[in-house]
Formats: sequence, C-alpha cells, structure tokens
Amino acid sequence: MPSSDSRQGHHHQRVPSAAVHASVRLGLLGCGTVGSAFVRLIHEQQDYIEARTGCRVEVGRVAVQNANRDRGVDLPADVFTTDVARVVDAPDIDVVVEVMGGIEPARSLVLDAVKAGKPIVTANKELLANVGAEVFAAAEAAGVDLLFEAAVAGGIPLVRPLRESLLGEPIHRVMGIVNGTTNYILTRMTEAGVDYATALAEAQSLGYAEADPTADVEGYDAGAKCAILASIAFGARVVAGDVYHEGISAIAAADIGYATRKDLVVKLLAVAEREPNESGAGRTPVIGVRVHPAMLPTTHPLAAVRESFNAVFVEGAAVGDLMFYGRGAGGEPTASAVLGDVIDAAVNLRKGSHATVGTLGEATIKPIDELVTAYYIRLEVVDRPGVLARVAGIFGSNQVSISSMEQHGRGEEATLMFITHEAREHDVQATLGALRELDVVHRVGSVIRVLEGDL
Amino acid sequence: MPSSDSRQGHHHQRVPSAAVHASVRLGLLGCGTVGSAFVRLIHEQQDYIEARTGCRVEVGRVAVQNANRDRGVDLPADVFTTDVARVVDAPDIDVVVEVMGGIEPARSLVLDAVKAGKPIVTANKELLANVGAEVFAAAEAAGVDLLFEAAVAGGIPLVRPLRESLLGEPIHRVMGIVNGTTNYILTRMTEAGVDYATALAEAQSLGYAEADPTADVEGYDAGAKCAILASIAFGARVVAGDVYHEGISAIAAADIGYATRKDLVVKLLAVAEREPNESGAGRTPVIGVRVHPAMLPTTHPLAAVRESFNAVFVEGAAVGDLMFYGRGAGGEPTASAVLGDVIDAAVNLRKGSHATVGTLGEATIKPIDELVTAYYIRLEVVDRPGVLARVAGIFGSNQVSISSMEQHGRGEEATLMFITHEAREHDVQATLGALRELDVVHRVGSVIRVLEGDL
Repeated sequence: MPSSDSRQGHHHQRVPSAAVHASVRLGLLGCGTVGSAFVRLIHEQQDYIEARTGCRVEVGRVAVQNANRDRGVDLPADVFTTDVARVVDAPDIDVVVEVMGGIEPARSLVLDAVKAGKPIVTANKELLANVGAEVFAAAEAAGVDLLFEAAVAGGIPLVRPLRESLLGEPIHRVMGIVNGTTNYILTRMTEAGVDYATALAEAQSLGYAEADPTADVEGYDAGAKCAILASIAFGARVVAGDVYHEGISAIAAADIGYATRKDLVVKLLAVAEREPNESGAGRTPVIGVRVHPAMLPTTHPLAAVRESFNAVFVEGAAVGDLMFYGRGAGGEPTASAVLGDVIDAAVNLRKGSHATVGTLGEATIKPIDELVTAYYIRLEVVDRPGVLARVAGIFGSNQVSISSMEQHGRGEEATLMFITHEAREHDVQATLGALRELDVVHRVGSVIRVLEGDL
Repeated sequence: MPSSDSRQGHHHQRVPSAAVHASVRLGLLGCGTVGSAFVRLIHEQQDYIEARTGCRVEVGRVAVQNANRDRGVDLPADVFTTDVARVVDAPDIDVVVEVMGGIEPARSLVLDAVKAGKPIVTANKELLANVGAEVFAAAEAAGVDLLFEAAVAGGIPLVRPLRESLLGEPIHRVMGIVNGTTNYILTRMTEAGVDYATALAEAQSLGYAEADPTADVEGYDAGAKCAILASIAFGARVVAGDVYHEGISAIAAADIGYATRKDLVVKLLAVAEREPNESGAGRTPVIGVRVHPAMLPTTHPLAAVRESFNAVFVEGAAVGDLMFYGRGAGGEPTASAVLGDVIDAAVNLRKGSHATVGTLGEATIKPIDELVTAYYIRLEVVDRPGVLARVAGIFGSNQVSISSMEQHGRGEEATLMFITHEAREHDVQATLGALRELDVVHRVGSVIRVLEGDL
C-alpha cells in the first residue's frame, strides 16, 4: 500500500497549480441503476462538494461487462472498460466504488483492490452479509477505508451512526423495516383492505416488486440486511445463513383485520437482539437474528412507516429509543449514500487517515426455539360443541396461555383467532403441531409474533 | 498546539507498558445533569470502549463552581477543581468536554481550550446558536475537533449524518420536532383531549416542563436549535436571533379538535429551508428559519412522534425524505451523544487527525412575510346574517382564498374555522388586521400554518 505522502505527491504531479484542489479519481465496478445514478449525482454535486471539502471527486474509470451499452451518463467512451484490473489495480484510481452486487466476482475484486491499498465504498448487501468478516479483516489489515452506508438501508444514514455515534452505547436490540416491497404490500393490505395477491400485483406494476418476488416476500433480502445490522450493532460475525426468516405470503386479509381491531399493525421486521448480561469483555455475545411478520402497537414509531419506506429502530441502554427513517432502495437514494461514503474516503485519503473498520468478533446465535414473545394464531376449524375446549386444552398442555380470542363464522368453516401471552417459540411450535393433528382443525392459517409485551 | 507526536510521547511516558493502551484524559467544564450522567456512562463503558477502539477514556479533571457538592459520581475528590485553567489549559488534559451551558463563560473557555490545541466536545445549544460561527472558525483555524452531537437533539445521532453522510446531498428543508416539552403538551391535548393549561401542569408535575415554561412553550429553545440545524444543513451562518418564532400557548382544544377531524395533527415545528435555484457556488443562499405550531397530515412521519420524543425530518434532492427520531433531552440520552463525540475525538487524537469543521458562509435570511403556505384560522364572531360574507370578503380582497370552513355555535358566541389555500404570510397578516377591525369579530383565536400542500 502506498503511503499517504506518495499519494499526495501523485496528485500534485497531475494537478500542478496550488490553487486547484487535488482531485480524487474514482473507479467504479458496475454501472447499473445505482452506478449510473451515482455518476449523475457526482456530476451535479462536483462543484458543491469541492467548495465544502476542498476535494474534487471525479469518475476516472468504470468497469462494465459491455462497454458499449448506453447508460444515460455523461462520461467519455474511453472511461468505460471491460478490464477490471484497470479499476482495482490501477495507479491512477484512488477509491474503488463497488456497485455491481452479488458475492463473486465482487469479493475477489474488492480483496484485490484492498490489497492494492485502495479504499473501498460498496453498496453490496450480499457481499457483506455472506463474507463480510473476511472483507472487514482484509481492510483492517491493509489500513484502508471500507465504507458501506448504502448496503443496509439504501439512502438512510444508519451505518455511520451505528459504527461511530453509538460506538460507546450498549445496544440491546435493532429492529427494522428493511424491505420496501413487503412494506408496500402490507401497507396496501392495511389501508386499502386488499388481499395479498392484489397488493403484490400492484407492487409489481409499480416496479416495487420483481416478476419473481421470492427474495423480497419470503424474507431473504431482509435476512441479509439483518445479518449486517447485527454485525455492526454488536461488532460480531453474523451471516445471512444465521438469520431465521419467514415471509409475508401467508398473511390473509383476516389477519390484518384482526390486527386493526386490536390497534396493531402487521410489519415484516428484521430483529437483531443481544442477550442481556453477556456484554462483559471477553465473553462471546449471544445474538438472536430473525425476520418475520410481527404485530406492533399502532403507537409504535415503526407502525407509522408506510408504503415503500424503510426504518430501523435502535434500543440503547443510555440513549433510549432511536429511529432512522428513509428510502431503503432506489437508484438515487442509494447513490446518495454511496456519495456520502465517497466523500468520506476522499477526505480521509487527503488527510492520510482512514476510518476504523474494526474486526468482527465471534457470536453465538440464539436458536429461534428459545425466543419468548406473544403470538397471534389463526385456526380454521369446524364449529361444533367442545371444539374450543379441545383447542384450548392443547394450548394449556404446552404451557401456552391465551390472552384473547375471537371466533368468526359458524358450522364447517369457522375461524378462531388467538393472541397468547408471552410463550416460548418451542412450546408454540409444539402446540401448532398438536393442533394440526386434531380432527376438528382444518388448518393453521397464520402465526404472527406480537411485539407488544416487550416494547 | 502540540503536534500529535508530542501528545503520543506524553501518553507513553505516563503509561510505559506497550500492552496497555494510551489513555485519553478528559477535562469537563461543568458537572450538572448531563455532566454527571456522562461520568457514570464513561465508568460503565470504559472497558467496552477500550476493547472496541483501543482507547482508554478517563475523566481527568472536572471544573465546577462548588467543588464540594455531591454529584453522585464515583470520582476522587481531587479531580474536582474550581480553577477552569486546569481544564482548558492543562498539559495533562487531552479533550475538553463542555457541559456547562450558556454563552459566557462557556464561549471564552472553549476559545481558550481551542487556542491550547484541545479538541472540544460540547452539548451547548446557546453557545452554538449565538456564537457558533466564531467557535467554528477558531476550531478550523487551530485544526482541532469541535463536536456537538448533543447540542441539537439530545441523544439523536443527527449532526454527524448531516455533516458527514449528507455532505454531498443538496438539502432543501430540515423540519423538526425539537422540543420535548411542547410535544408532550400537544400529544396530551390531542390524545387525552385536555386543554393547554391542564397539559402544561401535567408536564410540570412529570418534570418535562419547568416552573417558568417560557423558553419551551414560546419557542425560544426550538428557535436556538433551528439556527444550529440551518447552520449545519446549509453550511451557513444562522443565529438564534434570525429565527422567527411562535409558541403553543394560544392553542385551544377547539383547534386540536378541528385538526383531528381533518386528519391533521398539531406539532410545534422548527423549519429551516433553502430557497431553490440558489445552490450555485458563490451565491449567498437564501434561508428561511422559523418555529411555529403547524398542522401536519396524520400520515406524515412527524405526526407519529409522540410524548416527549423529538424527530428531525430532512428532505434531500437525491436521498428523498429522511427522519431521525429519539430522545431530545435528558441526562442519559444527552450523555450518550457526548460520549459518541468523545470517542470520535479520542480516536482522531490518536491518529493525529481531526474532523473537518468547515467554516460557515454568509446567508440571507428570508423574511417571514414572504412565506407561502396554507393557514388554519379560528375567529370568534357574532352569528348574524351577512357575517360570513363580510369575513369572506376580507379574505378575498387580500388575495387569500378559502379552502374549507366550519361554524360552531350560534348567536353572540359563534366560532368560524377556516383553512386557506396557499397564501403569502404578508397577505394573511393583512387579512387578520382587517378582521380585527370588523365589529362582528370578537377576536382572532388561533392562526396555525398548515403544511399539507407542500408535503
């Protein structure tokens, strides 16, 4: 890695006049939606950034698969290259901006760039959620910046506050709405009363959901973000595969209706929480990470997060409750977060400094079986004398106590809706298993965790 | 100012073992609610901070007016001093933490500490809102950190995101609920239906409002915060005296009831906005800064900010809408923000680096007369044939157009409630002046700006 002095010298050679600010040349890996929005934003903001920071930030090179495609950006043709080495290992590139996504080849390219001493700005959720610890360790060892504000919640400034402002704050829990597609669908189901299929079709026609919506609606996308949130909030190694996840595709209009009558709102939450009394130095923290639909009181700040917006709620011992709200996706908001990181890296480079990356320690992942919370359960049953007693008996024999119940319909097609007191996930799963065996239960409709007791 | 090398040498002399981390010694100015909460938090978090950052942060000295008072902190008696020079100009103090409040002597002490090359962490709203530009310029010239996360919205990490993450983002408007006392009162009036006096008395009994609540309820506190928000969002010199402000003491239950019927919520907002088309380099920005009650749609994220919580809503061109939510006051949340800054200053000191303070440029303050928004107006009138026509005529002849109207009561004591279309403040004031002259108008009850059209 070149010393900061040799870097400065390099810039001075290229920009001889002392009155002209040293420029910082960026090398982009990828130029899709985020990359091209970023190039446009840089061009708009170049003079303003230079006036505020003394750094002129320029796009020096862009590595793409097809150098001839029109990306709607105002860059000379010779800036585009298909040779990635001309970005990650080129002496005239100062900062590498990785906006290609996916684990490989992004991982190898980022590691190569780090080896070449280049600060990295990345918007790549998959990379960090799967091989984050490796990339963090490489950046720490090389003493270069690794900044990723855009990787968790798009445009919301969240990573920097968590990594810097709250570094001394003991955080208990981070709980977020981190997937805009599912939040849009749930908002429409709640406010317009439409069913899941209709809301999904709407989201698809608006471009909020993809033709194959699996990654969003089944909680994979939120799971990856949950892993990154846990890593930075607790300084621990948590990967996407550690995160328990459920999606929203089984949620019915009946569930939403029940929530509304109880002053609750259904949201898909990513929750990362640390067991208490384990924060002593040297002890491996026990961390729970899970993504699932949850019912929240309408007075909770997350309940007011509507449509495709995202928000992350942070609970600290001293600071109390915090929430960060904004656009979690989209080219422009994500590009804005990338730009904030690029300016940071550029200013650090000029100072010969870099942000503390920090290595990630070990974590013990708490099994979902040990979760304790309240549950909403909807059962489709036959309405016959004695049915409720038999159902209630199964709850009771599994140590799950019922807080409230509603019955709708009569005869062969009745619906029972329960909210339990706090119970162990293991016991609730045993209850559901036994209920499925019962002849009078057609099926278990929905199971939604209720985050009322512990708010 | 000593170089970073001589500082490191100094620490190494005091802590000879290489295995022991260099400690950073803090000098506190003041030890009231925030200061003593800060000392307790440092003691709790010392080992954790050292493990995460490699810096051991210690309270070296505390300057107070009375060195003998019990402050509930676990510090040796000889740490306390009444001699401020032993904090601001002592070779064994590395970082100065100013938690005394007020403009003087805080200003002189901070300038002395900056002159002595010491990084400053301050929670002092009055200082920054009144002589911020002077303190910023001194810190920039001396090349020392000046960090003030705690000065605007207590524990909410807001200043760092605005100064760093959003440095390249063209911000149009920052709009916040930055006073917990008034938000508590308005929440109670809205949710419990109590009147202003009852809600104020409740807030006082809970310790949310002071015996003399003027600074809070008349908008002075929010005005000072508004000035700081404008300064950091737009990089411009805005002081408390520039901020137009109104309070909430004239708001009646009738106004809240009308808002509720229209799906609006009344909040005391601090608004800092920048005129469009003025962001070109070299042009003096035109900035509007104002604090007043406002009616917001219930679907707006700020509408869900309840009780004594604070939140700041930021509108950027690329990033879109952002909101930062949390505790705006209180010893522990404020101490948490101070601690985040202290860690930052300590880490920078070890690296021989410092954050870019940035100087504040000139700003032209937009007169409140030129504001364009919608207005809610309540009039107490005599109900007589022709009254509405005369009132409506006055609106019309002043170019203020009415969007909706309700009448309550009959006879000598009727109430008329209007919401106007967007109008100029100047024209609305002219309308109100003419209405006050009208024999059938007993009085103008409330005038509340409605932020619906431009959201």
